[in-house]
Amino acid sequence: MTTDSADLFAPVDLPDSSAAAAARERQTTLTKPAGSLGRLEAIAEWVSACQGQCPPQVFARPRVVVFAGDHGVARAGVSAYPSEVTAQMVANILGGGAAVNVLASVAGASVRVVDIAVDADTDASISSYKVRRSSGSIDREDALTPDETTAAFTAGRAIADEEVDGGADLLVAGDMGIGNTTPATVLIASLTGTEPVAAVGRGTGVDDEGWSRKTAAVRDAMRRARPVLRDPYALVGAVGGADFAAMAGFLIQAAVRKTPVILDGVVVTAAALIANDIAANAKEWWIAGHRSTEPAHSLALTHLRLDPVVELSMRLGEGSGALMALPIVTGAVATLGAMATFADAGVSTEA
Amino acid sequence: MTTDSADLFAPVDLPDSSAAAAARERQTTLTKPAGSLGRLEAIAEWVSACQGQCPPQVFARPRVVVFAGDHGVARAGVSAYPSEVTAQMVANILGGGAAVNVLASVAGASVRVVDIAVDADTDASISSYKVRRSSGSIDREDALTPDETTAAFTAGRAIADEEVDGGADLLVAGDMGIGNTTPATVLIASLTGTEPVAAVGRGTGVDDEGWSRKTAAVRDAMRRARPVLRDPYALVGAVGGADFAAMAGFLIQAAVRKTPVILDGVVVTAAALIANDIAANAKEWWIAGHRSTEPAHSLALTHLRLDPVVELSMRLGEGSGALMALPIVTGAVATLGAMATFADAGVSTEA
Repeated sequence: MTTDSADLFAPVDLPDSSAAAAARERQTTLTKPAGSLGRLEAIAEWVSACQGQCPPQVFARPRVVVFAGDHGVARAGVSAYPSEVTAQMVANILGGGAAVNVLASVAGASVRVVDIAVDADTDASISSYKVRRSSGSIDREDALTPDETTAAFTAGRAIADEEVDGGADLLVAGDMGIGNTTPATVLIASLTGTEPVAAVGRGTGVDDEGWSRKTAAVRDAMRRARPVLRDPYALVGAVGGADFAAMAGFLIQAAVRKTPVILDGVVVTAAALIANDIAANAKEWWIAGHRSTEPAHSLALTHLRLDPVVELSMRLGEGSGALMALPIVTGAVATLGAMATFADAGVSTEA
Repeated sequence: MTTDSADLFAPVDLPDSSAAAAARERQTTLTKPAGSLGRLEAIAEWVSACQGQCPPQVFARPRVVVFAGDHGVARAGVSAYPSEVTAQMVANILGGGAAVNVLASVAGASVRVVDIAVDADTDASISSYKVRRSSGSIDREDALTPDETTAAFTAGRAIADEEVDGGADLLVAGDMGIGNTTPATVLIASLTGTEPVAAVGRGTGVDDEGWSRKTAAVRDAMRRARPVLRDPYALVGAVGGADFAAMAGFLIQAAVRKTPVILDGVVVTAAALIANDIAANAKEWWIAGHRSTEPAHSLALTHLRLDPVVELSMRLGEGSGALMALPIVTGAVATLGAMATFADAGVSTEA
């Protein structure tokens, strides 16, 4: 069975260029030197285009969805942590104790975690989209069957729909899964034509021996990826995983639903590469939140021509880096909407 | 009269290194890979040291003080805006319509504006520390008399005391003043030994002819600065201005009062160079919020060995850039204080 994107996703429209033009025009009327808000002006213009209105509204319900999944390749010793940690951290997120919870609270967002492929039984409230337990060990077998791939994309699509229908007006995809930087690196290195040694990072912090094992696994998986490089569904099924397919579906459907997304780190951006190969317009609805220390993340950002909002040497995942960009995006939107104009404030314009 | 810093400022202690060590230790117990919060971990450690406690408390009253002042050199045509705009923008800040108001609201801070040397009568509520109307045209005369210099430092010191006594636990200095990037550039280029052409930027956005006039004014003022380079009080009196002296006093007194500061752009950082020459320990209480597009700002950051939290190509002043760093600083503090530990959450540590 081959998945056809037309069966899964409606077409993605481009953001509204006339709202973007209105935002550019409005910036010149606000009580500040022209262009002096720098990147914030471009961000506000983008949000205006996504919302199709100027001024844009400050986000009423920014929402993080953390996609949790295990990876068989973790058994190859590619991570500093054992696979049990995935389910433990999912419980930690549910309990509000993870970095994503704390940073979401600071940024004014709420958090949902979904079990896509955790290798354990999780709370019923988060497991309704579970595709399978773990994904296959991509160094020597497919991560997913074609049916599982379709199910995972469908899950991500449904989750995006639920969130947008529930009022989310800004989305962040986050990840949780021991071993997940290995398939992320395989996907990115394969799609950008990069040698493993130039793409493999330390993930959660493997030592030199772990890094060597990880690089070998990436090399083996990249060999398995080669025949399916031009088919994003087959590729994510061969060397990605259910969480990656679900995130890709989520990122496409957010765009279908005209909802802006802040991308997070290397795992989410690997899924974004898959999504981009399926729906070329989708990336116009995404902004890169941060640049992580993983080399493959920078490769993916360059490939997508995305310039991250912040660079804080973070490498935690969960959506944490995107959340540190969210207040800046909010600030950009707020200035365009709430600053006084020269006329309102009786301020003289340029001499 | 020569000002002696011992008459104006109590000694500056260093932040608490044992609290910093406790913060580093605590980071290793939190449910995340070691080091994975990147820059946030260093920031949280610094705030712990400033507060002398671990975990640090999330800021209860972050406070922006905007120092407003005009500059005689604006008459030399160095700015895209006429000097009347300073008082108009002060009124705009009082009315809540400026960028600093909107961004402070997003970041959870409150704003105070003080008239140090605006060339107009301003509201009585903000003019009690006024030193004079405008500062002298530094390309051909001193900005301030020695008594005015002392009065301006004393004003900045008193304002910091008022804010800390009023509960402020994080301070941001901001600036408002047409022409103020010219003295900022003179101070920075003089103290870093930089040629005018390598330091002069566009400020609010002057055209090529304005940039040439500005560069000539900077060159003339730098010549006037040369004899007093080693006396920071005399230097700011010769080629700075009352707002710069007040900001420097504020930045020193914040450190005396053990209160962390997020620096803003080129104007505040020029004042920080003066403050650093008076009180060498003070900069341990400061963090650089952002990197502006003004070349002199990067020169000053390098000189102070400060690495900005964000780089957003902003050049607005008012404290706006520092405010885009504040949510990241808050996020850093919140994670150290509120994340679950491995033990609390029952999460396995490294394999």
